[in-house]
Amino acid sequence: MDILGVIKTRRSIREFSDRPIAGELIEKIIDAARFAPTARNIQPWEFVAVTEPGTLNKIADITEHGKFIAQAKCCIVVFSSDTKYYLEDGCAATQNILLAATSLGIGSCWVAGDKKAYSGQIAGLLNAPGSFKLVSLIALGYPVSEDSFKVAEKRPFKELIHREKF
Amino acid sequence: MDILGVIKTRRSIREFSDRPIAGELIEKIIDAARFAPTARNIQPWEFVAVTEPGTLNKIADITEHGKFIAQAKCCIVVFSSDTKYYLEDGCAATQNILLAATSLGIGSCWVAGDKKAYSGQIAGLLNAPGSFKLVSLIALGYPVSEDSFKVAEKRPFKELIHREKF
Repeated sequence: MDILGVIKTRRSIREFSDRPIAGELIEKIIDAARFAPTARNIQPWEFVAVTEPGTLNKIADITEHGKFIAQAKCCIVVFSSDTKYYLEDGCAATQNILLAATSLGIGSCWVAGDKKAYSGQIAGLLNAPGSFKLVSLIALGYPVSEDSFKVAEKRPFKELIHREKF
Repeated sequence: MDILGVIKTRRSIREFSDRPIAGELIEKIIDAARFAPTARNIQPWEFVAVTEPGTLNKIADITEHGKFIAQAKCCIVVFSSDTKYYLEDGCAATQNILLAATSLGIGSCWVAGDKKAYSGQIAGLLNAPGSFKLVSLIALGYPVSEDSFKVAEKRPFKELIHREKF
């Protein structure tokens, strides 16, 4: 599938099958993350790949809208050092993760990290230094149904494009 | 090229040839943006496609590190309504724009909008309502050389991956 197809069929998937994700695919997905653009080329990000069920359960417990992480086969936790544009950089990397996963047939869902009261708890659980910011948590797993990768309904194109002026 | 190839060959391109970008390609690129994930499915974004040289020059003048926008054939300006996660949403959309452009052989460079003193000036120039936040400005144009799409040097994979714990 070409990239525009991948972009359009990526959608939040929160129900996962029991099928494990091969370690090399997790590495491929994180490898894609590091090619995101980054302000001043600082590349302030760090990625924790969590696959242990016990830790996945704890992450699910801590997060507000990430209870389904308990069923995920992997959770990639994106941290960043505290730079001016850490959130821009970390979100671009997160989007690469979602797209790389989709292209491999792996379902994904972005759970918020920044601005969340639980960010310190997640950092503590994973032994991240206190100076790092939690950007996002990405649940990964094979979807229960292949039909999961269908184009989501979105605001119509004509409504959000403006030509020359807003 | 598959999506991992596009992700790896995307890099900031700031020198553009005189070749114009077909309107339908600009539409294709913005169409990709709207399929980004968005917190609570709010889709708070709006995209202004600027192609008039006079306006491109003014944007270049206003920005700090975007002087090359004067030579771009298009600048996509990403605004968002002021939601809790507007920056996450807008950055995911921005990354889709960069990847879609790369896949079409169009060079791109992300110029910061959020947290910039000039964001109000850009909004004013483009008649964006004051309630909207400026997320990013993306310069687009064909690169002067085809060699421009080469894999950028990045921090090594082994340095930024952490297994189970940070």
